[in-house]
Amino acid sequence: MKTQDKREEIISIGTELIIINGYNATGIDAVLKKAGMPKGSFYHYFGSKEAFGLAVIDSFADHYEVKLRSFFNDEELPPLRRIRNYLENGLECLAENQCTKGCLIGNLGQELADQNERFRARLEMIFREWKQQVATCLEEAQQKGDWISDADPGVIADFILSGWEGAILRAKVMRSPESLQNFINTLFATVLSVE
Amino acid sequence: MKTQDKREEIISIGTELIIINGYNATGIDAVLKKAGMPKGSFYHYFGSKEAFGLAVIDSFADHYEVKLRSFFNDEELPPLRRIRNYLENGLECLAENQCTKGCLIGNLGQELADQNERFRARLEMIFREWKQQVATCLEEAQQKGDWISDADPGVIADFILSGWEGAILRAKVMRSPESLQNFINTLFATVLSVE
Repeated sequence: MKTQDKREEIISIGTELIIINGYNATGIDAVLKKAGMPKGSFYHYFGSKEAFGLAVIDSFADHYEVKLRSFFNDEELPPLRRIRNYLENGLECLAENQCTKGCLIGNLGQELADQNERFRARLEMIFREWKQQVATCLEEAQQKGDWISDADPGVIADFILSGWEGAILRAKVMRSPESLQNFINTLFATVLSVE
Repeated sequence: MKTQDKREEIISIGTELIIINGYNATGIDAVLKKAGMPKGSFYHYFGSKEAFGLAVIDSFADHYEVKLRSFFNDEELPPLRRIRNYLENGLECLAENQCTKGCLIGNLGQELADQNERFRARLEMIFREWKQQVATCLEEAQQKGDWISDADPGVIADFILSGWEGAILRAKVMRSPESLQNFINTLFATVLSVE
């Protein structure tokens, strides 16, 4: 296996363990055991557990950015439909996992925002990027007349992001996608209503 | 100190440590050290760390229930105003803490829903109770003509609870109450609009 591939495999296994157990409860030993690599490998690729955690976040954010763009930049569809498709796809993904795991960024934000300023700042940056993507799509909806509203797209994007993160958390606790479905239905019947 | 007082002091210190560090990272030793009690005390009051964690949740939920009732049952105010007052009070409390800590039930849901079925079930019950309180207040708003809407109060209560939990999480990560203010403003300008 090439050096880059090994690093990516450690990150991939780490992501899977961290999303289930959290950052603090995920030991480096467990990650390496699952990867079938000796402990020396870890410090060859990452200077510390913190550097590893930040690499997991960056890798997840990079992949997720591609996913978001594939939904939000889909010029074939009206902007509000793109947002709805993104949320409905999220609901399907969570339902497939029996509503376990949740959102890695939300999970780590909850766990680490008060404990580690480096993590908090990185997670804040990711939330800002996500919000910007939604806001841009909402702005396009206003410009195209797809959504007749003089609301501030940034404020509504913030509202949507909060509601979605909260619905994911509640789906995880309730072990049911009902809150996700309620969120989507209510959002499009009220805040993003086109009637 | 009386037996009951000692137990309550351990719970109170545990609540403070768990809301900051999470359940897994909160050691019994740290709780007892802060309480100035010997280790034997702990097992006199709680059979296990899990029993202690559940007692912390129950104690928090009991106190919070009183707080919710004081807002939602305030007959002097129109029902929607009661909900707004509750949310604005929450914003103030979080802002006072520089948006750290967040919501104990949301934090523990994020951390433990996938790890421990007993915790998950208890947290689910609390979320159900909170949702019911909001739903009852919304129903009263409809009956009194305070809120002209044929929406299902249970669905809207679910939407509000998700949005609020998510806004608390985002406030914690962004270290700013902006998401909480956006949530309140947008909710009352759209979903709960009385225009």
